[in-house]
Amino acid sequence: MVLLSGGLDSATVLAVARDRGFACHAISFDYGQRHRFELAAAGRVAAAGRAVEHRVVTIDLSASGGFGASALTDAIDVPKDRPERLDIPVTYVPARNTIFLSIALGWAEVIGAFDIFLGVNAVDYSGYPDCRRPFIDAFERLANLATAAAVAGRGTFRIHAPLIEMTKGQIIRTGLALGVDYSLTHSCYDPDDAGRACGRCDACRLRLHGFADADANDPIDYPCAG
Amino acid sequence: MVLLSGGLDSATVLAVARDRGFACHAISFDYGQRHRFELAAAGRVAAAGRAVEHRVVTIDLSASGGFGASALTDAIDVPKDRPERLDIPVTYVPARNTIFLSIALGWAEVIGAFDIFLGVNAVDYSGYPDCRRPFIDAFERLANLATAAAVAGRGTFRIHAPLIEMTKGQIIRTGLALGVDYSLTHSCYDPDDAGRACGRCDACRLRLHGFADADANDPIDYPCAG
Repeated sequence: MVLLSGGLDSATVLAVARDRGFACHAISFDYGQRHRFELAAAGRVAAAGRAVEHRVVTIDLSASGGFGASALTDAIDVPKDRPERLDIPVTYVPARNTIFLSIALGWAEVIGAFDIFLGVNAVDYSGYPDCRRPFIDAFERLANLATAAAVAGRGTFRIHAPLIEMTKGQIIRTGLALGVDYSLTHSCYDPDDAGRACGRCDACRLRLHGFADADANDPIDYPCAG
Repeated sequence: MVLLSGGLDSATVLAVARDRGFACHAISFDYGQRHRFELAAAGRVAAAGRAVEHRVVTIDLSASGGFGASALTDAIDVPKDRPERLDIPVTYVPARNTIFLSIALGWAEVIGAFDIFLGVNAVDYSGYPDCRRPFIDAFERLANLATAAAVAGRGTFRIHAPLIEMTKGQIIRTGLALGVDYSLTHSCYDPDDAGRACGRCDACRLRLHGFADADANDPIDYPCAG
């Protein structure tokens, strides 16, 4: 089971999981993101990465759906050209990885998959508590208490976060070595109407920095970048 | 933050939380239940229990929504008149309490609520792994690693499961002492078209047994019960 956002990290994770011999079931979340290019990218990445299947689960985490405010789900301005990363970015969605992992766990239990992969990264996203190793370990422990499959001894859930200690440059090198086509991925928090990346938000800056670190060219289009 | 299903247990938990002095925000889940009487009951119970607000979060956990099969979300027959409880009932929804708690946690973080109440019960639902104390403790630990609010030291999440060791009879006595109007609640897994309880499924049997234990009359209608 691979959590697939359509971004660069989860595309790499899908390739890593396949490289380790897993038949991969991909899951994405339609959670009221402000733009839908992510989900389209997730579909492309799942197909290119030869996922056995790809399912999109709908959950309304926007403020209008009775939930919290985040720049990724609501009408809050995405920060641009920030000189450095602050504590908790405004793009933080409360408990997002907990929610996504929980739903993935439910589907994993149904299909008998005990290995769940996700692309969290503690280096670039150090401001997000749910991208760190203690969170991943705590979720793994929870999964083995929460499910009939684990409690009945049919298997032990493992939460795999193969990118957690990598820099963006290392992630990109890993993916390129495994044949990931990064032209299919979407990272930008604030794309134009055609889905093209802004080149200036935190996600674009991290991505561009990563490609530079990896001595590689980012294959996507940045129409407005300098 | 009180997880409210519209059933007898969560109605009691709302009363317990209010009795402990909390201003209660109720959250319910529209997760593709086969019948909608539960959500209607949750609205009535929230109003009667003087919740500050009541929000319903939509998430599609049915098989058609890309998820697993359960008699509570799909076209599987609800077992009737079972002589005794088996291991994992067919009404088990994979990872349900993990998913519901995760979403409640996200909303709790947004509004700054650190106390989350739910009506899990290890006595009557011993077949459900996510109704037991080790699960609740593991989720509490996770919550304090998963959220910016906890990691930044703004508070410590507590998961309250005040009914976890009670029998159904004790739950009903507790609720009656706190003035819960059980006529507003819905428990039946297989109601008729008017929402009236069947009196024969596991949920109805447990409920009727609980009222008998509490020496009280169940105020809801059982048109077909003998």
